[in-house]
Amino acid sequence: MQPSPIRELFRVIQQPGMISFAGGLPDPDTFPVEAFASCADVLERDGRTVLQYGASEGYPPLREAIVEMMTGRLGYSPQPEELLVTSGSQQAVDLIGRALLDPGDVVVVEAPTYPGTLHCLRNAGARFATVPTDGDGMKVDLLPNVIAASEGATGKRPKLIYTVPDFSNPSGACMSLERRHHLIELAAEVGIPVFEDDPYGRLRFSGEPIPSLKSLAGDAPVVIYASSFSKVLAPGVRVAWTVAAPELIHAMVLMRQGEDLCTSTVTQALVAEYCRRGLLEEHLQHIVTTYARKCRAMQEALDRHLPEGSASWHEPQGGFFFWLALTSGDSSSLFERAVEEKIAFVPGGAFYADPDEQVSDVLSGDAFARLCFTFADDAAIDEGCRRLGRVMASR
Amino acid sequence: MQPSPIRELFRVIQQPGMISFAGGLPDPDTFPVEAFASCADVLERDGRTVLQYGASEGYPPLREAIVEMMTGRLGYSPQPEELLVTSGSQQAVDLIGRALLDPGDVVVVEAPTYPGTLHCLRNAGARFATVPTDGDGMKVDLLPNVIAASEGATGKRPKLIYTVPDFSNPSGACMSLERRHHLIELAAEVGIPVFEDDPYGRLRFSGEPIPSLKSLAGDAPVVIYASSFSKVLAPGVRVAWTVAAPELIHAMVLMRQGEDLCTSTVTQALVAEYCRRGLLEEHLQHIVTTYARKCRAMQEALDRHLPEGSASWHEPQGGFFFWLALTSGDSSSLFERAVEEKIAFVPGGAFYADPDEQVSDVLSGDAFARLCFTFADDAAIDEGCRRLGRVMASR
Repeated sequence: MQPSPIRELFRVIQQPGMISFAGGLPDPDTFPVEAFASCADVLERDGRTVLQYGASEGYPPLREAIVEMMTGRLGYSPQPEELLVTSGSQQAVDLIGRALLDPGDVVVVEAPTYPGTLHCLRNAGARFATVPTDGDGMKVDLLPNVIAASEGATGKRPKLIYTVPDFSNPSGACMSLERRHHLIELAAEVGIPVFEDDPYGRLRFSGEPIPSLKSLAGDAPVVIYASSFSKVLAPGVRVAWTVAAPELIHAMVLMRQGEDLCTSTVTQALVAEYCRRGLLEEHLQHIVTTYARKCRAMQEALDRHLPEGSASWHEPQGGFFFWLALTSGDSSSLFERAVEEKIAFVPGGAFYADPDEQVSDVLSGDAFARLCFTFADDAAIDEGCRRLGRVMASR
Repeated sequence: MQPSPIRELFRVIQQPGMISFAGGLPDPDTFPVEAFASCADVLERDGRTVLQYGASEGYPPLREAIVEMMTGRLGYSPQPEELLVTSGSQQAVDLIGRALLDPGDVVVVEAPTYPGTLHCLRNAGARFATVPTDGDGMKVDLLPNVIAASEGATGKRPKLIYTVPDFSNPSGACMSLERRHHLIELAAEVGIPVFEDDPYGRLRFSGEPIPSLKSLAGDAPVVIYASSFSKVLAPGVRVAWTVAAPELIHAMVLMRQGEDLCTSTVTQALVAEYCRRGLLEEHLQHIVTTYARKCRAMQEALDRHLPEGSASWHEPQGGFFFWLALTSGDSSSLFERAVEEKIAFVPGGAFYADPDEQVSDVLSGDAFARLCFTFADDAAIDEGCRRLGRVMASR
């Protein structure tokens, strides 16, 4: 059994004195501790329901709150049979992988992409075809070639296209409107569903919002949409949701009845109550302001401390991450020297499928580094970038 | 896509006026609503930790509470690397299935057995070899033949033996001490791990407690032990735990990092606080008293209302269920007539692997019916048995 590289990483960043830009964690100072705890009234008021087994589809008051909250983002009000509450959107990826994929099936992913999704889909036996990205997200014009090359290599059509179109983890990029239209059109043509993973869509600091793929697809069942309370409220609740065609939701429900039955009704009820009181919208305003400030602080600190010409990046308009392209050297060896100086980030390789899992052109992330700007406090952002600059200058 | 029979069942039992002995649900009147809600202090006190991502292994204060609570039942104090908190013990079965099984592998199960486990393991591609049971649980003396027949049919050794030794769902039976010793001995000889699923072990009303398989196995890593807060506190918390060899726990942790990352820290913290305050032991005394009374009430009502000689059963010494062997007819058609009279139970067939999933001797449960005595209130227990007796008399 191999030790998990992510676990090794988290062991490293817990060393005393370490400044971490590694984990994609919300700032615990932003957690609405008092307001959330005050919602525990609901545990007493609705205790007989909340403490009992719940429906696999989710706790009804939470489902209502989600529908209300999502109508704008989705461009319509999803029907009950289109909605499933999951234990984090990680579970949505897992259930979809288990419901849709047979071992050896290919999923098209962006390069770079979220490693948790690679992990989930790997558990379902998936292999990966990778589409390059730039500051405007997935290079959709390359998608037909990627699909064709994958079909050439495996003899079958990919089963799913996975994307984080808004403030990608790790690249921070937003897919342009033009590419979104193009992606939906292509996906419908080839008959491959698109999984739109949208944990960060509400966390925009600047620029104009871009409609979700789901809203652009309209009635077409080509888009599976998932989002989560992890980044907009708190990861500890483990509450997320998926909106998709009724047939897929039904398959996911059956799969999850053999996985964990349902998401804790206790935590669902607390989140529902939090939404019902209008606290989420208030909280969102607060964190968007906070994260915008931290994002700017990291942009300025990187400008200030990184050696001239050592890396390039786009300043993100939302989300959690900076994605640095190193001008020379590889990010794994940079990481090793950085942790000696007590500054941690995630080397880019983590965001690419393993070479032997990639079915056609093999892409790798050795020249990149992901820096999370939300977790560290303002002083640590500056000091961390100073340390990083010193390490980069010393090689 | 087939509709799930269990979901169909739950649709039926929600009809107005229905008395349900079907679902294996705790009595909501026993839920410690106020006491549990009062534990929400912890959400404020430890909010910064509780709202953040947690370790996949579980929230440390809950892990401590579990170790303390389990030391007696396990006969030793499990080490940290032997313990994993899961989202219900359903998830433990799922993770073990995914970690240990390849599609087509065989799991030995009791006949009858818990259908949630069949569902989980089916998702991992398992087939089943079934061992008959009686009032003393699994007929362990038949196990060597079952294993040999399975090997003969599939060409390979089963990967796991699954049992609910204490107050089996559905049969209510307890495996005798002699059979427990024999099972451990056999399992060690053939090198097949035993999964001891123990949700009901603490719910004994009468008779002497029997040591867990895990405690009898001592240092030998042959037993994987799982239990849950669902039946002793509340299913809505979705908190359970597994104690097993470190290598297996590690494999489960890796699998679950691609499944749902971790169990909600919010709900883990609430349960930990509930245990820390000593409330669980108090509550256990309360529910054991309540369920003992209800069990007796159902025994008396069955004696009173069922036609002489129409069914036989053992009065359970704990757990949730009566398991009726019908003298004639099959339980599916009895069920159809029963729901017309507004009384529901679960027909026995649900507790057997599908015939085409069974690799050797095919057993079926058509002559049995599971009646849950914990959920209905006292008046409904009597009236429900009266209705059932009327239906049985009328065929």
